Amino acid sequence: MPTAAESSPLIQPIGVDETPRLQPEAKSRRLTSLQERATFTTQPEKARHERFIRESIDLLLKEAVFECSNENSKVLEWRSPNDLAKEIDLKVAAEGETHDKLLQLLSKVVRFSVKTGHPHFVNQLFSSLDPYGLVGQWATDALNGSVYTYEVAPVFTLMEEEVLQSMREILGWCTDGKDEGDSIFCPGGSMANGYAISCARYNAFPQVKTQGLHGLPRLSLFTSEDAHYSVCKMASLLGLGSDSVHLVKCNSKGQMDANHLEDSIQASLNSGEMPFMVSATAGTTVIGAFDPLPRIADICDKYKLWFHVDAAWGGGALISKKHRHLLSGIERADSVTWNPHKLLSAPQQCSTFHVRKGKGTKEAPGILSATHSTSATYLFQKDKFYDTNLDTGDKHVQCGRRPDVMKFWFMWKAKGTNGLEKHIDTVFENAAYFTEQIRKREGFKLVVEEPECTNVCFWYIPPSLRGKEDTDGYTEKLHKVAPKIKERMMRNGTMMITYQPQGTLPNFFRLVIQNSSLTHVDMDFFITEIERLGKDL
Amino acid sequence: MPTAAESSPLIQPIGVDETPRLQPEAKSRRLTSLQERATFTTQPEKARHERFIRESIDLLLKEAVFECSNENSKVLEWRSPNDLAKEIDLKVAAEGETHDKLLQLLSKVVRFSVKTGHPHFVNQLFSSLDPYGLVGQWATDALNGSVYTYEVAPVFTLMEEEVLQSMREILGWCTDGKDEGDSIFCPGGSMANGYAISCARYNAFPQVKTQGLHGLPRLSLFTSEDAHYSVCKMASLLGLGSDSVHLVKCNSKGQMDANHLEDSIQASLNSGEMPFMVSATAGTTVIGAFDPLPRIADICDKYKLWFHVDAAWGGGALISKKHRHLLSGIERADSVTWNPHKLLSAPQQCSTFHVRKGKGTKEAPGILSATHSTSATYLFQKDKFYDTNLDTGDKHVQCGRRPDVMKFWFMWKAKGTNGLEKHIDTVFENAAYFTEQIRKREGFKLVVEEPECTNVCFWYIPPSLRGKEDTDGYTEKLHKVAPKIKERMMRNGTMMITYQPQGTLPNFFRLVIQNSSLTHVDMDFFITEIERLGKDL
Repeated sequence: MPTAAESSPLIQPIGVDETPRLQPEAKSRRLTSLQERATFTTQPEKARHERFIRESIDLLLKEAVFECSNENSKVLEWRSPNDLAKEIDLKVAAEGETHDKLLQLLSKVVRFSVKTGHPHFVNQLFSSLDPYGLVGQWATDALNGSVYTYEVAPVFTLMEEEVLQSMREILGWCTDGKDEGDSIFCPGGSMANGYAISCARYNAFPQVKTQGLHGLPRLSLFTSEDAHYSVCKMASLLGLGSDSVHLVKCNSKGQMDANHLEDSIQASLNSGEMPFMVSATAGTTVIGAFDPLPRIADICDKYKLWFHVDAAWGGGALISKKHRHLLSGIERADSVTWNPHKLLSAPQQCSTFHVRKGKGTKEAPGILSATHSTSATYLFQKDKFYDTNLDTGDKHVQCGRRPDVMKFWFMWKAKGTNGLEKHIDTVFENAAYFTEQIRKREGFKLVVEEPECTNVCFWYIPPSLRGKEDTDGYTEKLHKVAPKIKERMMRNGTMMITYQPQGTLPNFFRLVIQNSSLTHVDMDFFITEIERLGKDL
Repeated sequence: MPTAAESSPLIQPIGVDETPRLQPEAKSRRLTSLQERATFTTQPEKARHERFIRESIDLLLKEAVFECSNENSKVLEWRSPNDLAKEIDLKVAAEGETHDKLLQLLSKVVRFSVKTGHPHFVNQLFSSLDPYGLVGQWATDALNGSVYTYEVAPVFTLMEEEVLQSMREILGWCTDGKDEGDSIFCPGGSMANGYAISCARYNAFPQVKTQGLHGLPRLSLFTSEDAHYSVCKMASLLGLGSDSVHLVKCNSKGQMDANHLEDSIQASLNSGEMPFMVSATAGTTVIGAFDPLPRIADICDKYKLWFHVDAAWGGGALISKKHRHLLSGIERADSVTWNPHKLLSAPQQCSTFHVRKGKGTKEAPGILSATHSTSATYLFQKDKFYDTNLDTGDKHVQCGRRPDVMKFWFMWKAKGTNGLEKHIDTVFENAAYFTEQIRKREGFKLVVEEPECTNVCFWYIPPSLRGKEDTDGYTEKLHKVAPKIKERMMRNGTMMITYQPQGTLPNFFRLVIQNSSLTHVDMDFFITEIERLGKDL
């Protein structure tokens, strides 16, 4: 069998024969019509490529898509890095491989990858594999586009505007049919939080864009100690330094303490700093807490600070009439991070950033443009024959940008807002059921008595440690329980749940539910499985 | 027909029935084995989802993948934004749509999207649709992963290390089998250039990470006037301000003038600034020029500046023995941006950033970690049971991150390095042929006589303007020719090529070739088609 390289040495558009469509002696011929070209296209290579693609799809559907949602299969087949390197021939080489070998490799990639769509993958703030999301993603890939100008991405550009506007409506920003907002897709929630800091800083000091921070007073911003690490990371990247981020204390539920926020702002002012922003969190990463947005909004009003809400995780709850009260006050935010790939289960990666008053006018561009545009003339020409307001790329810090909208739009079209709402209500109901089971089950203890979101944090206390809370070394011993159980479940492949310490608390488990096909049976399974794996510790 | 919402109201993993697997009366039952679960799974919903997915795939293969590589088809079917909004029902609504309606929508999305895989799409620094790249991309989607820890992405983590190390070898950084480098995948070349500035700045002033720029002297960096706009954009984002970027003059070939670079550094020093970095370009965006890397490396040595090379576009030429001389000197770079989705034709988006001395040790982390890590304990736990050196996420400014490696790895496996080399040699040969035709064809004029890369810039001068170079208004008239031809080709859908002004030069066309299935016939077609569309202007 010829290797793929021999038979297809070039990077080709699919369906175009590798043999030159034009023989050398014909090269000097000028062709006047496209029709004439067709005679040079042969079919065998197209057929060979199509066969390979279809075989690959069959493999993916069977071994990745449907298998991963089968609860009788394993979440993962664990191999250490060294062993995994022996299982899959990852090395690239001078010569290409045959189609048969490529299919074998593909199968191995699937086999040893973690099945994030498996019902028992509750390890991260994403999971499940939505059929409509998958089709949307595959369509995106087949079209292989980049979104920056309307001319190159007409459909995706309009689709982004439609989806983002609908999200702003859900945020409560479009009153009386008026929409003053602006939004973008970002490569992840961390970047979205970076955009927030960038916009807030420009809002306070527009000269930063050209002159930088040099000569400005020391700027400061505020977020809770339980907020996502990206706030500090982005403050570093943006030249503010992580010290510019003041971490506000949380109460026992993991919510930002608004009194301490105001104290912190005062202390910062007293030390000569220039506060410019508060980043509240709607759904913290570990505990799932919602900061008191109305209180924080009041404080931001009082001190004239940019009010950002990182709702990367909790934003999806806005779609539910029953649960959107958790984010009450978000309608007052200056900007919001919201990742549909988290609670709404869109495929990876789908992150959005919204600015409430961001629209701008012809004369005065909105803040995303004002902060980030450089008006490169090779891409954003102003003498195009269409309205270049839809050449939206210059609002972004990326240039080429993968369309992340299609998967989410297609899901939304398929289910409707009502379907998305049912999804949210189901995952919250399952989390409540799980919490209730944990609360009454011997050997389990909740970290926060009343979890607000669908992450539930808890300890499993093996029989050997029960009733010994007051003995020496108890905390150290409990700290080692979760890692050991995690190791066992990884080696067994039966489920994946994460653990972490927080503050002075020893390692505890965090269950995350955003897969609405799970049932109470799954919730019971998680408990039983952790008991099974840990009871001898 | 039921709507998708009615029959599948929840976001589900594929193949899991919407009807609860467990009846209410059974909810209190505890299941002790996974096997017992299987009885609750029914098949009809899985079959319905699989049918829909397969119908979608058939549609995508026919209408997007194979049609787009057919030169008898249109590159695009132009609609103005208003007309396009009428053609596709983009609005999301309370209720979901039927599968039939969803397939119709999918077909419209494909129909009105630009076919970037079409042989006559030469509009951007990317094009074509590689069959192996597409399969790799679809596999990535089916696995729906995120890369930050080995436990969640074991295969993709090792695959990234393998591909990135092979790229460093090609950069000439692994002499005597020693590899001191480190690399990451980034969401685009702009972000990669941002990483370069961030690392260079940390290298000069590590305190920036915590303390920020406050109190530091004014920093400065240098790039050419033809460099990509992301250098300025990222300098703004990073708090340095766009004024901190000194634009060095280019010679008539579009290459950075090394003498002017040194003058600029001196002037910056004299004005009290602190230069810390030069960003050279290997393949400029418009002209395709390669800056004189060895000269720039010498200057960086002399002034102790970080030497970055933005080879986002030109990097692919390193794979060709015939053309890698263009990047001679890159082996001395401190960091490099290199996008396989450009010259190497990997699918969107595949961007990499490399640091030559970045590896670090257990005691002293490499510069990517040192600059960006925050050691979040909920994700990067140190008490895991495996070697956490492979939990590479903390080197990134993103948290969740789509795996962009699989598509490129799979292509590389399929073709081998030799296949990639043939690809590069072919696109360069086509560019040389096109240049030669333009040079001798009446009415065409090259912007740069000897293009270095596969972008070829030229004017088309319609008969009405020929011989009138010295008359009043000639330049203004010529400036309007390219936009008019572009409009006509968009409305005809026969090809897509971009145009832009540069400096004082009026609008000119930029042809970009990175699709190696094109032949001289296509090159001739581009010329004939531009003549056809513009001869009456």
